[in-house]
Amino acid sequence: MPDARFQPLPGFRDFAPQEYAFRAYLFNTWRKVAHRYGFVEWEAPTIESTELYLKKSGGELPTQLFRFTDQGERDITVRPELTASLGRIAAAYQREYTKPLKWFEIGSCFRYEKPQKGRLREFVQFNADILGEAGEGSDSELIALAIDCMREFGFTANDFEVRISDREVWIRYAAEHGVPEEQVGDFLAIIDKFERDRPEDSQKKLDAFGMLRADIEAFIQNPPAGCSPRYDAVLAELDARGLAEYVKLDLYVVRGLAYYTGLVFEIFDKGHSLRAVAGGGRYNGLVSTLSNGAVDMPATGFAMGDAVIAHLIEACPAARALRDAALRPNACDVCLVLAAPEMRMQMLTLASTLRDAGLRVDLPLAPAKMGNQLKRAEKIGARYAVVVGAEYPRVELKTLATRESVQTDLESLLCELLPSED
Amino acid sequence: MPDARFQPLPGFRDFAPQEYAFRAYLFNTWRKVAHRYGFVEWEAPTIESTELYLKKSGGELPTQLFRFTDQGERDITVRPELTASLGRIAAAYQREYTKPLKWFEIGSCFRYEKPQKGRLREFVQFNADILGEAGEGSDSELIALAIDCMREFGFTANDFEVRISDREVWIRYAAEHGVPEEQVGDFLAIIDKFERDRPEDSQKKLDAFGMLRADIEAFIQNPPAGCSPRYDAVLAELDARGLAEYVKLDLYVVRGLAYYTGLVFEIFDKGHSLRAVAGGGRYNGLVSTLSNGAVDMPATGFAMGDAVIAHLIEACPAARALRDAALRPNACDVCLVLAAPEMRMQMLTLASTLRDAGLRVDLPLAPAKMGNQLKRAEKIGARYAVVVGAEYPRVELKTLATRESVQTDLESLLCELLPSED
Repeated sequence: MPDARFQPLPGFRDFAPQEYAFRAYLFNTWRKVAHRYGFVEWEAPTIESTELYLKKSGGELPTQLFRFTDQGERDITVRPELTASLGRIAAAYQREYTKPLKWFEIGSCFRYEKPQKGRLREFVQFNADILGEAGEGSDSELIALAIDCMREFGFTANDFEVRISDREVWIRYAAEHGVPEEQVGDFLAIIDKFERDRPEDSQKKLDAFGMLRADIEAFIQNPPAGCSPRYDAVLAELDARGLAEYVKLDLYVVRGLAYYTGLVFEIFDKGHSLRAVAGGGRYNGLVSTLSNGAVDMPATGFAMGDAVIAHLIEACPAARALRDAALRPNACDVCLVLAAPEMRMQMLTLASTLRDAGLRVDLPLAPAKMGNQLKRAEKIGARYAVVVGAEYPRVELKTLATRESVQTDLESLLCELLPSED
Repeated sequence: MPDARFQPLPGFRDFAPQEYAFRAYLFNTWRKVAHRYGFVEWEAPTIESTELYLKKSGGELPTQLFRFTDQGERDITVRPELTASLGRIAAAYQREYTKPLKWFEIGSCFRYEKPQKGRLREFVQFNADILGEAGEGSDSELIALAIDCMREFGFTANDFEVRISDREVWIRYAAEHGVPEEQVGDFLAIIDKFERDRPEDSQKKLDAFGMLRADIEAFIQNPPAGCSPRYDAVLAELDARGLAEYVKLDLYVVRGLAYYTGLVFEIFDKGHSLRAVAGGGRYNGLVSTLSNGAVDMPATGFAMGDAVIAHLIEACPAARALRDAALRPNACDVCLVLAAPEMRMQMLTLASTLRDAGLRVDLPLAPAKMGNQLKRAEKIGARYAVVVGAEYPRVELKTLATRESVQTDLESLLCELLPSED
C-alpha cells in the first residue's frame, strides 16, 4: 500500500510501475485490436478552446469542466472527451487521407465529478471512429471492433452484451404518435431515462404527449419485426463475422447526447451491475457542426473508458488470468551479477554488448553482496542472471526459473541469449 | 497542409495519423532503449496540487504555469514537468520496490510560453530517473541511457555531445575564493549565464565577489586535472561501455534549477544551434524536500523533450532515414477487395478469420469499384490485397509491392499470410 501522506488530488491516480503495467496492458490490447481492424492512431491536444465544446453540445456545457482563463485571456478547457477534437482535426486534415477514415485515440480526459467506483476526474478513453461512410458496413465494422476488444480481454458472451438501438425507430414512433418535430428531443430524453426513472415519473412526463408508459414498455419488449432495417442489416453482417451472439436490439438505449443520429449502442456486463463499459453510435451531423458547415462527413464512433473495464476484468476469472499473466514482473531479460568487484569495467563492457544486441539488461550500480544481487534479479523478473567473476571472459549463466547454471564464454553466451529475445 | 480554419490553440499541436506516426516513433524508441536498460514505466497525474510545485522550487514558482482554481477551491496546476510528481510518487511507493528504482515516464507537460521553434505550450518529455543510489554507477548508467537514446535515433558522435559538469567543482571554487555559503547559489547563477551574458555583464556581477571574469574563463577552459573525481569515475565507466567519445567535461554547464547537487549534464547538437535536446543531473535532496523529510533518497535523472529532437532528426540525414522508414504508411497487412458484391458476407467471414489469426485487415465498408478498392489498399500501405469474387472460397492473393498475383484456397491463404506477421 502506498504511503497515504503523499496522495494525488482526489479523483486523480498515480501509476507507479506496477499500476502502470496494468495501464500498458489495457492500452496495448486496445491498440492491437484497433490495428487488426486497420484503424490508425491520432491524438488531440489536451487543452482546447472552450468554444469547441460549446459548438459540439449546442450551447449547453456540462457543469463539470476543468475550464479556466489562460494568461492570454482565452477561455480554455482541459478536454472532457475526445470527439470534439476529432471533428475539428478530421475537418482540418480530411483532404490528406483516403476515405473512410478509421481513426482511434487513447487519451486522458478530465471531468470534475464526485469521485466514486468507476468515476474519476482524470480517466482514459479509448475512442474509435469511422468518418466518411454512412452505410451499415461502417456500423458493423465499428461494433465488431468493440466486441473484439472485449473478447481480447478474455470476456465471452456470458460476460457482456452489446445493446444496440436505433434512434430512427424512436423518431418514427414519435412522428406516428403525434409528437411535434421540435419536441422529439424531449421525447427521446424521456426514453433515455425510462429504465432509471420511477414508472410514475415516466408516466407524468409522457402525459404531455398523451402517451401511456405501458404502451411504450410493450413496444420495447416486443419491437415489431423490421422496425429497424439498419439494425437488421448490421446483425446480418455481425452474423457473417461470427459475432451475432454478442448483440441484441434494445430500444431502452438512446444515449443522452443530442448529436447522435442513427444506430447507438452500449456495452454492459451481463449482470448490468456497473455503468456501461463502452458506448457510442452514429453522429452524422457533428463534423459539419464543428466545422461551421465547411466539411460534412457521416461518422460513427464509440468510447471505452479505463475505469469500468478494470472492475469487469477483476470480476471475471478468465479476464483476470490474462491480466495477471501480463502483469508478471518482467523488467529485463538478463541481470548481470558482479562476483569480483575488480571486474566492474568488464561487466560494463558486457552490458553494452548485450544491450546493443537488443537484450534488456540490468546490472549492479554499486557494490553489493552476491545474494542481494541475485535477489534483485528475481524480484525484477529477469529470465537469466549472468555472473561475472575473476574467470571473465568465462561467465556463469543462470536460468532463474529452473536455477540451472552453466559456464560459458562470451560468444556462446550471446548465442544462448539471443533467441530468447521475442 | 491542414485547413487553417480549424486550428488548435497557439502552442498546441494536432496529431493526425501521419503526425502521430512520428510521435509513436519517438515514444517507441525511448521505450525500447529504456527497457534495454532495465527501466520500468510509470505515469503521473496530469494535474497536481500547485503546492507540490511550490515545494519543489522552494517557493519561487515559474510564471508560465497553467494554474487555476478548481470547483472545490483547490489551487491546482496542469503539470509543467514530471519530477515533482516523481518525487511524491516515489516517496509514496518506494517501500514496494527493490532499490535502486529505475523509472521512466513519457508524458505531456504544459507551460504558458511564447510559442517558437522548439518551444510549445504542450510538449512531451521523456524522463528517466534512478532513485536510491548515490554512487557514480548510477550517474554512468543514466548518462549511458541518454547517449543510447540518441544513438538509436541514428545520431553519431559527429552530431551531438554530452556536456557534463559537476556542481561540486563550483561549490569548492566558491569556497576557495571566499564566497559566503549563503551566496553560493547566486554565484552558481552567474556561471549558469556565463555563456549567454555579455562579458561586461558577467564581470559586473562578479565584482560583488571580487573575481575576474578572465580567471573563471581560464578555469573553465583548462580545468585542473582531478578537479571532479566524480566526472573521472563516470568517464571511466562510460569508456568501459564504449561511450567515452560522446562526453566531455564542460564547466559552463550548471543547470538553472536550485535542486541539483552533483553531476549535471546537457546534450547539444554539435553545432550548438538549438536549445539543449536533453538535460539533467543529480538531485539528492529533492525527494526529502517533496516528502517533508519523511523519505530520503539520492537521485539522478534527465529529461528529453519531443520538440528539439524533432528538429535535430530533420537536420541529420541518417536520423531522417530511420524516421522516414518508420513513417511509411503501414496501416494493415491485408486489404480485402470485393469483386462480386453478392459475396460480401463471405468476405466478412474471411476478415474475421484473418483478424482472429492476428493479421491487420482492412475491407470495403460499402460497395466500391475494384480499381478504387485497390487504390485504397496501396494508399494505406497494405502488403497484400485479397480479392474475394464469385469463385470464393478460391481467392486471389496480390502482393502489392511486386504486383504478383496467385489464385489460392483459404487454407493455403492463411499459410501464405501468417509468416508475414512480425
